Amino acid sequence: MSEITADLRKLAANTLRALAIDAVNQADSGHPGAPMGLADIAVVLFGEILRYDPSRPDWLDRDRFVLSNGHASMLLYGALHLSGYGLSLDDLKHFRQLKSKTPGHPEFGHTPGVETTTGPLGQGFANAVGFALGARMMKARFNGKGFSPFSHRVYGILGDGCMMEGVASEAASIAGHLGLGELVFLYDDNGITIDGQTNITFTEDVEKRFLAYGWHTLRVDGHDQLAVKQAIREAEKIEDRPSLILAKTHIGYGSPNRQDKSKAHGEPLGPDEGKLAKEKLGWTGAPFEVPAEVRAFFGKQAAAGKVAREAWEKNLAAWKLEQPELAKLWDGHFARKPGGAWKTALAALQGAKGATRAMSGTAINALAKEIPGLVGGSADLAGSTKNTIAGSGHVGPSDFTGRNLHFGVREHGMASIVNGLALYGGFVPFGATFLAFADYNRPALRLSALMKIRALEIFTHDSIGLGEDGPTHQPVEQLWALRVIPGYHVWRPADGVETAMAWAYAAEEGAPAPHALVFTRQNVAALTRPEGFDPQLVWKGGYVLQDAPGAQAVLIATGSEVGLAVAVAAKLAAAGKPVRVVSMPCLERFLAQDSAYQASVLPPGSKRCSIEAGRTGPWKMLTGLDGLNLGVDTFGESAPYEQVYDHFGLSPDKVVASVEGWLARG
Amino acid sequence: MSEITADLRKLAANTLRALAIDAVNQADSGHPGAPMGLADIAVVLFGEILRYDPSRPDWLDRDRFVLSNGHASMLLYGALHLSGYGLSLDDLKHFRQLKSKTPGHPEFGHTPGVETTTGPLGQGFANAVGFALGARMMKARFNGKGFSPFSHRVYGILGDGCMMEGVASEAASIAGHLGLGELVFLYDDNGITIDGQTNITFTEDVEKRFLAYGWHTLRVDGHDQLAVKQAIREAEKIEDRPSLILAKTHIGYGSPNRQDKSKAHGEPLGPDEGKLAKEKLGWTGAPFEVPAEVRAFFGKQAAAGKVAREAWEKNLAAWKLEQPELAKLWDGHFARKPGGAWKTALAALQGAKGATRAMSGTAINALAKEIPGLVGGSADLAGSTKNTIAGSGHVGPSDFTGRNLHFGVREHGMASIVNGLALYGGFVPFGATFLAFADYNRPALRLSALMKIRALEIFTHDSIGLGEDGPTHQPVEQLWALRVIPGYHVWRPADGVETAMAWAYAAEEGAPAPHALVFTRQNVAALTRPEGFDPQLVWKGGYVLQDAPGAQAVLIATGSEVGLAVAVAAKLAAAGKPVRVVSMPCLERFLAQDSAYQASVLPPGSKRCSIEAGRTGPWKMLTGLDGLNLGVDTFGESAPYEQVYDHFGLSPDKVVASVEGWLARG
Repeated sequence: MSEITADLRKLAANTLRALAIDAVNQADSGHPGAPMGLADIAVVLFGEILRYDPSRPDWLDRDRFVLSNGHASMLLYGALHLSGYGLSLDDLKHFRQLKSKTPGHPEFGHTPGVETTTGPLGQGFANAVGFALGARMMKARFNGKGFSPFSHRVYGILGDGCMMEGVASEAASIAGHLGLGELVFLYDDNGITIDGQTNITFTEDVEKRFLAYGWHTLRVDGHDQLAVKQAIREAEKIEDRPSLILAKTHIGYGSPNRQDKSKAHGEPLGPDEGKLAKEKLGWTGAPFEVPAEVRAFFGKQAAAGKVAREAWEKNLAAWKLEQPELAKLWDGHFARKPGGAWKTALAALQGAKGATRAMSGTAINALAKEIPGLVGGSADLAGSTKNTIAGSGHVGPSDFTGRNLHFGVREHGMASIVNGLALYGGFVPFGATFLAFADYNRPALRLSALMKIRALEIFTHDSIGLGEDGPTHQPVEQLWALRVIPGYHVWRPADGVETAMAWAYAAEEGAPAPHALVFTRQNVAALTRPEGFDPQLVWKGGYVLQDAPGAQAVLIATGSEVGLAVAVAAKLAAAGKPVRVVSMPCLERFLAQDSAYQASVLPPGSKRCSIEAGRTGPWKMLTGLDGLNLGVDTFGESAPYEQVYDHFGLSPDKVVASVEGWLARG
Repeated sequence: MSEITADLRKLAANTLRALAIDAVNQADSGHPGAPMGLADIAVVLFGEILRYDPSRPDWLDRDRFVLSNGHASMLLYGALHLSGYGLSLDDLKHFRQLKSKTPGHPEFGHTPGVETTTGPLGQGFANAVGFALGARMMKARFNGKGFSPFSHRVYGILGDGCMMEGVASEAASIAGHLGLGELVFLYDDNGITIDGQTNITFTEDVEKRFLAYGWHTLRVDGHDQLAVKQAIREAEKIEDRPSLILAKTHIGYGSPNRQDKSKAHGEPLGPDEGKLAKEKLGWTGAPFEVPAEVRAFFGKQAAAGKVAREAWEKNLAAWKLEQPELAKLWDGHFARKPGGAWKTALAALQGAKGATRAMSGTAINALAKEIPGLVGGSADLAGSTKNTIAGSGHVGPSDFTGRNLHFGVREHGMASIVNGLALYGGFVPFGATFLAFADYNRPALRLSALMKIRALEIFTHDSIGLGEDGPTHQPVEQLWALRVIPGYHVWRPADGVETAMAWAYAAEEGAPAPHALVFTRQNVAALTRPEGFDPQLVWKGGYVLQDAPGAQAVLIATGSEVGLAVAVAAKLAAAGKPVRVVSMPCLERFLAQDSAYQASVLPPGSKRCSIEAGRTGPWKMLTGLDGLNLGVDTFGESAPYEQVYDHFGLSPDKVVASVEGWLARG
């Protein structure tokens, strides 16, 4: 490639700045400051560093780029447009408009070239750690065996806000521990946040902090493109540690009255200051104008990427022919269709007894045989969450072949890295912790739902049934708190059959979506199922487990309370009050069924009682106002779990008494 | 005090170890390893360092002690018992039993001497940062003016788990920035976590990391009591920086087969290993035996604390007489009773127009005049969350007189520090961020509810009404996710009157409890209220805003949708379909009213429609199955907010059409 002139570099950066000014002004909404400050870095990344083919944004060996400070979205949209991704000037002109391809913050699955949804700060950085981990794990599986299909890197930008978020600290510590040299992050060190200069609250030594995590660090002037390029090339040479490049930049670069001020962050420059900024930058183009030479500059990089991608595909195809075993593994990771793995899981769990967390472990190990991409780990609770894949090692700094991960006590980092692995491709990743700590990783669960990715979380110790650890560890509100996330699936299986089917649905059978798999610490009752029971009924989310002629009511229960409902039903039947028992392992799935199916399970006009060891109020959405809702509406208690259940009125006899009283009231 | 012999030191530590072994064995549940490893440190802290009076655990100038690794609860319970707090040997024998004073993890408000509820890792450390900040702020208000009522320090212990949690990083960064020299934390560096050795995932240089945050650090052998004491005394001398003492310890110290092993962490030693451990330690006492000299040793420290407390009280009383102005301020902080501040807030907001977030700012400033302890800040969004107290400065490293705080982009750290300030006493503290980011600080909100403390959070930009920032920033599920936390109050005021009353209830009128105060970004309609409207009705959580003779249905709405409901009611009335409008600013309060009041608002059998720009399902608990529930059940959209409302069917005309269709269906 011929030398890039200083004038062209400047023009390219100013094109990005002008696009940001124009789009934000046109929307009268958005964040111009960061795109203007980061334009030089983006020119280097998209024009000289990143290997990508805009015609195939899903190419597996593309370099990944993550804009963790997602509010700088116009930087990314501008760069994607200039690089030839499927984003037109018209899309840029509709920045932040209804149904446009250019929403306020970058959204995965919505805009080609956006690798992950960012905006909630710190998480994009952690997703990128997941990308780098994914790359390293794929390298360990496939590289160096005649062909090395994974040679890309993971680049990204994060700002002061990301730096301050705890999730970034967690992820940085993991990346440093694992020595993820694929990772090259630029820190937009502009000294300004929304409330003023960063030094009003952020005076830590970021470089020293990252050195403490085991990172390689560099400092650079973020407006000196040649220096930025050289720093990145230096960083790429360091393969045993991730790199952080601390880039000094000026927010709102070029704006005479806004540069280096908070005001540049989140308000449009407006027409007057926009004009002044363009003058200062020496920009003479019309609004949304892109000079031909700038387009050509980015086009060269894209064209080179296309050539590389085509060569890669050719090599891959040849290699797969030469290496049938590896080709099979490859297809298991990247071309697997739902393959009936549920049958394997179900066979492993027929008649299972014990705690559902142990059944989950059985399901994982059964599915792991069928799904090579199933990988995961816990937040330092593997012995309790029972998620270890037997016969496979743990990923560590010197060996990435294993399928088990150690996340440490870093729930938010864990879930964000799981999101990164899911986005990376080829993996069905899971994290694991106690259900009470779903509060710690909730921000990442929300983004997995927004992105509609198959990111799984195992949540054990799912109720007061965990007993002695007490209210700090007993989830009461978490089930409903998760159920209200749009598109998020919460499974709370009652026994081995439901555990197998829930796991299989989450890992493979369902459309890509995030799932929480929720399990007990304590043993559950073994359920008897009718002859000829179709286990795929479980996938409907709720079904009639046990019917009774002349049923006077329907008991709706989940998880460990299904066995309780069955015991209660037996006692009620003996007392001449037959009831139907409905198991409801996944409300999200049940509500997705048609009304005819729903009515077949919950007949219109039927009296309904919900039983779940958690908050009761929202169950009125199934039971109606005259339903009975048994559960736990305060925090729990520290004691042996049978006593806690009894304390909250959830022993069989107390439930029978409650139901009889309710039936008697008509 | 006479020299403490090495034998007595050893005996005291072994007493704590034996109590932990015995209590955990008796409960057949719990964590013996950390108490055994930390016993030497606890002897130094409770026997020689901490200034406390067990007969007055609420003494304002006591040293605070926080056990952030709350699973080591038996260490704390043992130390509290030996120090003479109201914890008997019988209480220790009922460790982890129903309704005992010794639950699995330490609970504030439940056990005397427990300063904060810990167990969910990292948060106790952050609470302690709040304590130290509180101390520094009180010093700035009262010390050095004839008497210095605040001279205590804040001590604590944290483990590897706390160290890995992001919230600890956030809080440590803030503490370092502010130079909180009151803080002396000991890091239980035992190299072991549940899943194995910490180095399987945690190899960062903790000391270097804390130096990067601006802390003072020391290293010590955690089993050398004299060295520990000396290190603490060294740390106390450093007044301009918080101190971290990295203490090398052995988990399960003394257990021949468990020491330095993960197995020591969370399982009882059992009778056999318990016996072996006691033999190895040279412990010959009976189960739960406490040697008299050990009791005397701790008793001396407690007795000295009592003397100090009594002197302090005498000095305080004299000083208050001499300094009537300061005495008034003192009583404003520490002896204030609900004083009708709501009238001031209401007067400031009568007829207010605009966005409720701006009204919130008015309410804060009105209440701040009446409540000197009202302090708070935002997670770098003060310009948007409108929470700045005018006429007061910002707290910074060199000046702690202000009432405004800069938390930076650290939501979880913020809410945990707010919890610490609330626990500290004398403050009515608040944090502030966007409602979507309630996900980031949720673990701290849960603990504030469990602790029943007046810890407030302002959450603005409370719906799709924030517009262009799009789905990453538009809360849809957060209102319900917060409402399901037991005892947590979620207020979503509709106008100035409700904003004033909600704020006054949260800050002063209600019993101590945490409250979320939720506000719009966009302007809301000005509501007309009936002549003679009693504003205290707002405190009932839901009330009839506007009735209509022959009402065919009840519209229940919150926040910005109340104005929408009023507009809809007018259109329906014009069409001959009168409806009642109920405003429901706080569901928690409404559900706390008696059934007669509830029925007066929602007449039994009435047809009901809920309108709230968020998840709809749980509203069935008020509307019943045949109710209509209008809201947003998917993620939002990036666009100008009026268009987003219209897109989701929440324009007046679309709501009228929905309601008419529903009424027509009968």
